[in-house]
Amino acid sequence: MRMAELSARTGVPIPTIKFYLREGLLPPGERTSPNQAQYGEEHARRLKLIRALVDVGGLSIVASRAVLGHLDSGGVGELDTLGKVQYSLTRRHERDPDDDESSRAAGEQVQQLLDRHGWHVRPDNPARAGLAEVLATLHRLGQHDVLDLLDRYADTAHDLAATEVDALWRRTSVEDRAEGVVMFSVLADALLAALRRLAQEDLVVRTAGTGRTGGGAPQT
Amino acid sequence: MRMAELSARTGVPIPTIKFYLREGLLPPGERTSPNQAQYGEEHARRLKLIRALVDVGGLSIVASRAVLGHLDSGGVGELDTLGKVQYSLTRRHERDPDDDESSRAAGEQVQQLLDRHGWHVRPDNPARAGLAEVLATLHRLGQHDVLDLLDRYADTAHDLAATEVDALWRRTSVEDRAEGVVMFSVLADALLAALRRLAQEDLVVRTAGTGRTGGGAPQT
Repeated sequence: MRMAELSARTGVPIPTIKFYLREGLLPPGERTSPNQAQYGEEHARRLKLIRALVDVGGLSIVASRAVLGHLDSGGVGELDTLGKVQYSLTRRHERDPDDDESSRAAGEQVQQLLDRHGWHVRPDNPARAGLAEVLATLHRLGQHDVLDLLDRYADTAHDLAATEVDALWRRTSVEDRAEGVVMFSVLADALLAALRRLAQEDLVVRTAGTGRTGGGAPQT
Repeated sequence: MRMAELSARTGVPIPTIKFYLREGLLPPGERTSPNQAQYGEEHARRLKLIRALVDVGGLSIVASRAVLGHLDSGGVGELDTLGKVQYSLTRRHERDPDDDESSRAAGEQVQQLLDRHGWHVRPDNPARAGLAEVLATLHRLGQHDVLDLLDRYADTAHDLAATEVDALWRRTSVEDRAEGVVMFSVLADALLAALRRLAQEDLVVRTAGTGRTGGGAPQT
């Protein structure tokens, strides 16, 4: 199909498609004349995936390019590919995780949590630094009631992951599984964030003024 | 304390503090001379909260200002305050949710999900649009195995929310509860995202090649 049809099919405007081509996120079409190219189904699919990464996942162009690069990388072991995709989806934190006392302590807390739950995770998994940053922030802000729920969050995350990884292995090609890693990371993050807010509103309104936890009644 | 001490105490550089003052995220100190001001504990605390919103939550300056504005708003009912804080923490989606067939269908799917689970949520909760966007994206990409887990994710979100709302009511002041909404939204989002990635790595590596779900063995 020509670019105009690709645009109509995917809902992505032509200037945006051209931008993704220039930035190397979308592979070039097959050139049929000096200023004409043909695009296939794989381009339509890739475009939708780019929109998912950028719009839903909130990833930058640079981060999206890294993710897509790993999706395309053949020839290495599958676990390696899946790991690289996941690591590239994890937002890097600009601050040095060792920049103060509470960050150092948080790094140790992450390792203790992994040991306590018996999770095996590589030292270079960037989610370690992400978790340490959140823990350090909660400590600095004195949010001990949130920190008290850490193991509860960990158990929930592991239960969900078991279901997700099960679904991942049920996919039959490396490409589909690598794409599944994207879905179960950033798309599921967004899914859970939205569902949690909806459930929280339901429960806050439902329990307001019941004093069922001993807290004071709201002043409405 | 003077600004230099505020900076040392919080680890936030002086130019950044000045920027937050200019942008109205941090209230001004008490002026003691034409170019000297004093800051208190509430400034140190507020600075740490700003860093949590911006660094961990990934919120923009504009979005952070809105959240902080709602935290400070006295005089309205508590449920109103908590709701406004939560709504202002939810990332707005630029695209018109009704811009195509799959988005319209996704909006209906959100309502069906709420009905199915018996959740009461206001029509203007922005998380509805957020959830609809993720569902529409998953549909467009044909990720049916992820969509099949929707009710599982919803149950998990509601279970977590019950624990979180319990902790929220256990806090004794409106201010602490409003801050709790920030914690259980963006901070807990980041916490869960990191924990899910760590748990996923543990499980992917642990189950690789076992074929326990009938999927093909990895090619490593």
